[in-house]
Amino acid sequence: MVRKEGKTSELGFCTKPAPPAPLSFPAPYPILKNMHSGRARPGELALLQQIRARAVPPLRGPLRLGIGDDCALLRLRADEELAVTTDLSLAGQHFRLDWHPPESIGHRTLARGLSDLAAMGARPVAAFLSLALPGNLVQNAKGRAPFIARFLDGFFALARAYRTPLAGGDLAESPIPVADIVLAGAVRRGRALLRSGARPGHLLYVTGTLGGAAAGLARLAHWVETSRPARAACPDPARPAPPRLPARLQPFLAPHLYPQPRIAQGLWLARRALATACIDLSDGLSTDLAHLCAESHVAAEVDAAALPIHSAASLEQALHGGEDYELLFTAPPAARVPHRIAGVPITRIGRILRPRKGRPPVALVNVPGGPQSTQPLNPQGWQHFS
Amino acid sequence: MVRKEGKTSELGFCTKPAPPAPLSFPAPYPILKNMHSGRARPGELALLQQIRARAVPPLRGPLRLGIGDDCALLRLRADEELAVTTDLSLAGQHFRLDWHPPESIGHRTLARGLSDLAAMGARPVAAFLSLALPGNLVQNAKGRAPFIARFLDGFFALARAYRTPLAGGDLAESPIPVADIVLAGAVRRGRALLRSGARPGHLLYVTGTLGGAAAGLARLAHWVETSRPARAACPDPARPAPPRLPARLQPFLAPHLYPQPRIAQGLWLARRALATACIDLSDGLSTDLAHLCAESHVAAEVDAAALPIHSAASLEQALHGGEDYELLFTAPPAARVPHRIAGVPITRIGRILRPRKGRPPVALVNVPGGPQSTQPLNPQGWQHFS
Repeated sequence: MVRKEGKTSELGFCTKPAPPAPLSFPAPYPILKNMHSGRARPGELALLQQIRARAVPPLRGPLRLGIGDDCALLRLRADEELAVTTDLSLAGQHFRLDWHPPESIGHRTLARGLSDLAAMGARPVAAFLSLALPGNLVQNAKGRAPFIARFLDGFFALARAYRTPLAGGDLAESPIPVADIVLAGAVRRGRALLRSGARPGHLLYVTGTLGGAAAGLARLAHWVETSRPARAACPDPARPAPPRLPARLQPFLAPHLYPQPRIAQGLWLARRALATACIDLSDGLSTDLAHLCAESHVAAEVDAAALPIHSAASLEQALHGGEDYELLFTAPPAARVPHRIAGVPITRIGRILRPRKGRPPVALVNVPGGPQSTQPLNPQGWQHFS
Repeated sequence: MVRKEGKTSELGFCTKPAPPAPLSFPAPYPILKNMHSGRARPGELALLQQIRARAVPPLRGPLRLGIGDDCALLRLRADEELAVTTDLSLAGQHFRLDWHPPESIGHRTLARGLSDLAAMGARPVAAFLSLALPGNLVQNAKGRAPFIARFLDGFFALARAYRTPLAGGDLAESPIPVADIVLAGAVRRGRALLRSGARPGHLLYVTGTLGGAAAGLARLAHWVETSRPARAACPDPARPAPPRLPARLQPFLAPHLYPQPRIAQGLWLARRALATACIDLSDGLSTDLAHLCAESHVAAEVDAAALPIHSAASLEQALHGGEDYELLFTAPPAARVPHRIAGVPITRIGRILRPRKGRPPVALVNVPGGPQSTQPLNPQGWQHFS
């Protein structure tokens, strides 16, 4: 098979100009076992040393063995079980190199996994990061720190804040950036917050505010569209320029760029055995509430007037915008749900109903200016492969 | 930002013809929490149902909660700890759509993770699969089963053979196929086989034969080069044709296409507390032995005349060819290492030495026809980002 440099990559993409590093194949393909490599090529070893040094010295608690062996080893207490989640982040789909600062991409990669642990009421124990990156993203460019260094800055800042050691992962070279994050967390046996425990009559609560991430993303998109010179038809993939976001925008963008997983709130709910069901709002209230209802075999009603809408967001963004990473949970009417948990406001936004033929699985009531007092609230998330 | 259909993708790749499904952005980006989605778009839901149905009914043993919630839940016995590993597989680097049958790609994706568990002496407990695929790989083409169906056939055939339930994962759409596999396994506390326990005087053993995978890959590459018509400069990425490998080649290709992880052998070694160090041969003997020596702070000597070279392989392939997924382990001289473990031959191939200045970390002795009786054995693995 003939490879035409600068015209056709082996995957059938025609690239202009040629990709920075040709895909090498066949070869004894590389596998960095749990982020380990014994061969002294400067680029990769330097990256590995960078990651390993920052991963988490020293080992403590449940993590008995970290980066450097075939596997990491985790040891829980006898009364605990392990919650495990994985989340893919792809350039062009979950982030854009020319929209998101690398620190934000690193932060968001980890935040997605941590938020899943929060939704189970689990305490973070270890993270695993698989990174596939174009070669140019690990190289210094004109004295600027490479993408990877800034990505790791964002990643480890959040990891430190939530005491999450990096226990392993994998590295590979790829024409497009892909990150897969795995989070492992500990939760007391039988105390994990599931999606499936909501019952008719239970009340529906949410942490924090809704729509801030969607509003921030819209603001970011608007800024990119209005502030950038028109781009060349085929920009140089070897030099993706990270954005230089103006300081005045930061407060508006923060909910999108640096979302905070609700670990403390999830732990609180699990410890008190107060929530009957819980999910994190990653796809948006309308979609995630549909998930919760489906797993619990119930219906629900959301009070539009009660929603804690972010000050910069619209009702639409609060209902359907994803990535707020707040917790949506249910509790029996008799439960004493506080107004704040670990400093974050808790708002009652609706109730769980018995599913009934002819009734929408999720309904929205008290819509301001709405044509009807009750409307179906259909999931407006988004699916791949449609 | 203007997207020129059929010319420039958002990642800077010029594609001809246009990619099958445009990258959608911005949008409430999709996240299939632990392979779950509540929105009824036929393509994705069908894929999820396909995966979920085959994942592992019913739940048993340590897996308490599988696909469908924010996290999976694993529960170990009080005397066990959990081994966790992740491995990336990328098209163009770890496999090729036009070289490898989809069943083999699915098998190899899982085998890499299982082999890491084998190297720790762990029993598989759960797998997590993150898949990023071009849309056309999940769609039927001209009545043929889509790539994904055949990929899953290979994946689940191996999963069944090693009693490994699929406990979760993530799905995304991507211009190139990427799979990230996470394996979790249980091992008795303090009994995991590490890389770091080899001591001078210990003997070096290997399971099975070496070089068969490299020989198979070479055969596959030769077949592709000699049997295919010359390809167009820019093949249609929407229709990657899986190879139709002739039946007569299958026995030669099997070690490469369908490697068997040495789970039973790893469990045996851990149970008997017989091995002092262990690693799986994924990068090749020369590279993986260097890893083991580095973690144990020792040197080693390999007897070329003793190597169990696969009947189709050369010495070179046995030394440096990766992906045999055999186990390389050490044991004290007094240990009674059997000639077979669970049906697989065990061969003594060398010994562990004290590291000494001026001596290579790993040496090869008794080289047939070699210029010297002792040569340095340098790692010939391959690194990314070099």
